[in-house]
Amino acid sequence: MSEEINRQWTLSSRPSGFPEESDFELREAPIPVPDHGELLIRTEWLTLDPYMRGRMNASKSYTPGVEIGAVMTGESVGVVVESRAEGISGGDYVLSRSGWQEYSTQHVSAVRKLDPAVAPVSTALGVLGMPGLTAYFGTLDVIGPKAGDTFVVSAASGAVGAVVGQIAKLSGCRVIGTAGSDEKIAYIVDDLGFDAGINYKTESVSDRLGELCPDGIDGYFDNVGGVTTDAVLDHLANGARIAICGQISQYNSPATEMGPRNLRSLLVAQARMQGFLVYQFAARHPAALERLTRWVANGTIKYREDVVEGFEKMPRALIGMMHGANFGKLLVKTAG
Amino acid sequence: MSEEINRQWTLSSRPSGFPEESDFELREAPIPVPDHGELLIRTEWLTLDPYMRGRMNASKSYTPGVEIGAVMTGESVGVVVESRAEGISGGDYVLSRSGWQEYSTQHVSAVRKLDPAVAPVSTALGVLGMPGLTAYFGTLDVIGPKAGDTFVVSAASGAVGAVVGQIAKLSGCRVIGTAGSDEKIAYIVDDLGFDAGINYKTESVSDRLGELCPDGIDGYFDNVGGVTTDAVLDHLANGARIAICGQISQYNSPATEMGPRNLRSLLVAQARMQGFLVYQFAARHPAALERLTRWVANGTIKYREDVVEGFEKMPRALIGMMHGANFGKLLVKTAG
Repeated sequence: MSEEINRQWTLSSRPSGFPEESDFELREAPIPVPDHGELLIRTEWLTLDPYMRGRMNASKSYTPGVEIGAVMTGESVGVVVESRAEGISGGDYVLSRSGWQEYSTQHVSAVRKLDPAVAPVSTALGVLGMPGLTAYFGTLDVIGPKAGDTFVVSAASGAVGAVVGQIAKLSGCRVIGTAGSDEKIAYIVDDLGFDAGINYKTESVSDRLGELCPDGIDGYFDNVGGVTTDAVLDHLANGARIAICGQISQYNSPATEMGPRNLRSLLVAQARMQGFLVYQFAARHPAALERLTRWVANGTIKYREDVVEGFEKMPRALIGMMHGANFGKLLVKTAG
Repeated sequence: MSEEINRQWTLSSRPSGFPEESDFELREAPIPVPDHGELLIRTEWLTLDPYMRGRMNASKSYTPGVEIGAVMTGESVGVVVESRAEGISGGDYVLSRSGWQEYSTQHVSAVRKLDPAVAPVSTALGVLGMPGLTAYFGTLDVIGPKAGDTFVVSAASGAVGAVVGQIAKLSGCRVIGTAGSDEKIAYIVDDLGFDAGINYKTESVSDRLGELCPDGIDGYFDNVGGVTTDAVLDHLANGARIAICGQISQYNSPATEMGPRNLRSLLVAQARMQGFLVYQFAARHPAALERLTRWVANGTIKYREDVVEGFEKMPRALIGMMHGANFGKLLVKTAG
């Protein structure tokens, strides 16, 4: 261990709108000592995901918020420095819910051992981790794409959206993605094989959906909510299926934003809208990971990482993501 | 035929908010002559239903709007005056899509023959007709009530809501209804056996739902939309199922009303919201009608009719319904 301290990002205040760096505090703590059955892990890769904004609130979500003064919550990939458990040795790579810190101890039952020969270990935080599984179950189980369907995904170049669109393509759909820059649109169309993209910052999403989806939208995977979702609801095909995965456009509003009352669209189209969490499919995660791993290994599914170097940049990177600054799965690599 | 003319209510202008009597015109036409295979029917009972407001618009709904100058659309029950078809004779009662007029001709294949011995013929427009079937499929198929569920229905004393709540009770749910007067609340609780009611005009629906549903709402059958539905979304149990049947609170807004963006509630509760139309279950209507008929005959399901006398009162009765003036299934009985 090169340093004798464990740096941690803690939550120092609850933001009412977009989070600011001052909402976090970098603390130093002793490096913890593993108990029997535990591992000491040095963090190498940390993930930043939109759901973390909800954890900064006190209000009820699907899991409780982070306490003020506590280490921010989140998954990471790290290397085992010391093992007091069977089956995992020093030098092994593991995925764990370490939170935002450079070292943590974890019970061996709470980690997933990674094989660097199968895929880069960072993918356990993205395409072969929670975002990939979210895309997999949201697309295949919640929406249920059918060959010939017109399928729309928002935040299409992001960690979840990119996998969603590629699985919808594999399922025989015409796939249209929305994203916030021409570069992102070029990526989803040219590199990922989407049929079309809409830059929501420079184009009217509703007008473009009208042009691109003359027979309406059969499947919609929603990561953003707000005006993009309003536009989709104006173009539903009969029997449309909508998966509500995220509503990032709303997470940083200090108060509940107002929007058009448009549930009648569901009635007219006899459409189904389903909110879901990846955890509800936990029993099937291993089988899905196997399939995703095969698709990544043979190049069927491509992924892109946006790597920020330096543990100290965690808050800045999270804030940037809330503004759409990242391009691909946002990860922070520790200097260690 | 006591009169030689056929009175018809036609659409004379498209309302932008609540309809007014001046949006309709009472016209006189000759009594039509039935062709081979057709029946001449004298209307006895006309139904008024919330969906008719949508038919007064030019904008796209699930079926096209009524043309200006055309007879208003709708079902009725009438007596056959002359039959040129086999299987139905003069004096028989039939259900048909006559529109708002005192006489119509219909092909025999487009009518349903009614048996006055089984139930009063007017029930074919309510509990044993489209509203009853809507309640049946929306409750049993779209929501899927489970014993022990907490179940909420809006417009609970109406033609659809009253049947919804009684079927949910039969399914073992705790049932709470919303309605717009203390008299209606007393009816659903004392006469129909609901567990509780909320008068949305005098109580805070959200506060009362919080008190009445400490474990959240598992099933919600929505006839109204707007603030009532907002309140329900604030109290969803995990895995909640919502059927969007009607949004009457929105039908008379000249422009799209704004409301809180609350789809995140679906995400947090992993809830499903499904818009539906009774027609999508058409193949199963006969079997459902058989069951509903049995339930009505043995008193398991009760119903209430609000009868307005006089064909000339059709527009006024429709407008009253839009303001919640009716109490039970709204019907107009012709003087004939």
